[in-house]
Amino acid sequence: MRPAPAAVGDVLAAVDTPALLLDLDAFEANLVALAAMVAGTGVAVRPHGKAHKCPEIAERQVAAGAVGVCAQTTGEAEVFVRAGITDVLLANEIADPGKASRLAALAGLATVGVCVDHPAQVALLADATAVAGTTLGVLIEVATGQRCGIATQEEALVLAAAVGQASGLELRGIQAYAGTAQHVRDPAARAAAIEEVAALVTAIRDAIGVRHVTGAGTGTFPHEIASGVWTEIQPGSYALMDADYARNTKPPPFRQALHVLGRVISAHPDRAVLDAGHKAVAIDSGPPVAPEGHEVVSLADEHAILVRGAGAEPLPLGAVVHLVPSHCDPTVNLHDWILAVRAGVVEEVWAVAARGA
Amino acid sequence: MRPAPAAVGDVLAAVDTPALLLDLDAFEANLVALAAMVAGTGVAVRPHGKAHKCPEIAERQVAAGAVGVCAQTTGEAEVFVRAGITDVLLANEIADPGKASRLAALAGLATVGVCVDHPAQVALLADATAVAGTTLGVLIEVATGQRCGIATQEEALVLAAAVGQASGLELRGIQAYAGTAQHVRDPAARAAAIEEVAALVTAIRDAIGVRHVTGAGTGTFPHEIASGVWTEIQPGSYALMDADYARNTKPPPFRQALHVLGRVISAHPDRAVLDAGHKAVAIDSGPPVAPEGHEVVSLADEHAILVRGAGAEPLPLGAVVHLVPSHCDPTVNLHDWILAVRAGVVEEVWAVAARGA
Repeated sequence: MRPAPAAVGDVLAAVDTPALLLDLDAFEANLVALAAMVAGTGVAVRPHGKAHKCPEIAERQVAAGAVGVCAQTTGEAEVFVRAGITDVLLANEIADPGKASRLAALAGLATVGVCVDHPAQVALLADATAVAGTTLGVLIEVATGQRCGIATQEEALVLAAAVGQASGLELRGIQAYAGTAQHVRDPAARAAAIEEVAALVTAIRDAIGVRHVTGAGTGTFPHEIASGVWTEIQPGSYALMDADYARNTKPPPFRQALHVLGRVISAHPDRAVLDAGHKAVAIDSGPPVAPEGHEVVSLADEHAILVRGAGAEPLPLGAVVHLVPSHCDPTVNLHDWILAVRAGVVEEVWAVAARGA
Repeated sequence: MRPAPAAVGDVLAAVDTPALLLDLDAFEANLVALAAMVAGTGVAVRPHGKAHKCPEIAERQVAAGAVGVCAQTTGEAEVFVRAGITDVLLANEIADPGKASRLAALAGLATVGVCVDHPAQVALLADATAVAGTTLGVLIEVATGQRCGIATQEEALVLAAAVGQASGLELRGIQAYAGTAQHVRDPAARAAAIEEVAALVTAIRDAIGVRHVTGAGTGTFPHEIASGVWTEIQPGSYALMDADYARNTKPPPFRQALHVLGRVISAHPDRAVLDAGHKAVAIDSGPPVAPEGHEVVSLADEHAILVRGAGAEPLPLGAVVHLVPSHCDPTVNLHDWILAVRAGVVEEVWAVAARGA
């Protein structure tokens, strides 16, 4: 693991750029804001740890009322469980004996769940729990688009029966996460997408006789709560935020807590080149957003090129510059450390312990 | 650092996906092919280590005739020097005292060079070498586009004079890398772009009285060699290759050595979902290329969705699938390990020691 790019007490100018920053005031406000939006609904919160991959953040989410966290990979689940999170749902499918046996072993240390959409996955998990002597919770994933999941009551009944026959597996309910709906710009269109998913989920839920339905992200969770169908939501980005989610709802219900800090390594009258490129900030949802008056016009692997608008001051050589990532999850995955900052000073340094997992 | 996704002797089906594979036959052929293309020209080869970030690969490049390697960050330079590479050029600018002092310290362990395009960088490096008691080689970077670099003889003369006055700095020559020209599709247009850069470089080179000119990547280096201006080339991708460079020249002079191995975790009649998404393969140059008969139609953070064409067999649940990245550099940077494979068996496991650096 790389050395951390700063130490507790450092000011931002002393940070070894590029580096990932978390604004603690904004982050803490986001945890409070989510809790307030869910309070009184009876719906549980299980934040998605794929967004941050960081046990320190997961612990703070649990302290703020979360029942546990989601992981998206077996490696993430291992990191969270070993860090002391007592309830982890792998909100994804696995399809090889190696991961099944790691997951079954993990179920001896914490409450662990996993998704299925094929009888062969159930067989793998049944075999692994039989060897480990543990019990895994199983969620049947319902398809909400092109990704994983089953789409019919018949498939769900086959899976539920297979789970029922395995002594180390326990049917917990349904996983239904409408991934593409999260980033639909029109709030009414997002609500309509969730209504459609809710109808399918309700039919399958009633067919297999379960009550628990988990899913929902930062872009849609108020709709899943309003539907009365979901009993648990899985937002991840709310804690960090990014430019894409900020474009979804005006004003955004959450504050921008995550930044990539770059430094001007080449200064020109019309533009500045930062030492933060594709390897420091993800661009799958577009380029990062520069400070007001400047625009990121292109990125290379290790560089961002910022052009200044009329009236903006040139960015001087050596200056540190905050970029707002368009997509938080893959941006965090590029960094080994999160610098937790308050009032311009590094207050804590947290490992992205599940980076690359 | 994460545990390696496989051990020496493992077959691909046993790999903990997603994982990064290097086809050793193709990689070794690429080293031989480059040496053959450069043989007899008198031009030195200094491969860019930003592509692989892996000391084992750098060592093999030096064994194949390279004079040393390039790094793009101070952290990469440190990893290569500490691994025993005796000549490392940081082909980039730095603009903070912390990195200058690390680089000056490194110059006590190996021959180390760095680029400048501003007198303040020269001052930082002069101060740092004075403290460390070492000597850094300095390259004046000539702008070839919007990135770093100076564009006039006057600027070059100012920088050369400043370097000349610092006892710990030694003017080595010129850095000129035409980044955007690498990916221009038409070979004639690439040649024209390099001709234009050559004219500017020649004028500045003669103005400051140096002979050494270093630069050139996988997409253009035959043109830089043909120009007679460059004395050293810096290709990086040639050793690994990617789908974007393969589209540049038909037939490509290098073989595809790098793959991301994913696994089918959700199988459907019309499509397969792999466990390899944005966090396993970079998409800045487009989606990865799937095996013949299949197409990557979308990626999410941890998933790739492959749709099969008419006549192709469905990919079964649990099957491992090779993806060809569109851009090798940022893809390698997502992985902690390279599995060096021959005939379907893991022959060596190499750390991407400068990942995230």
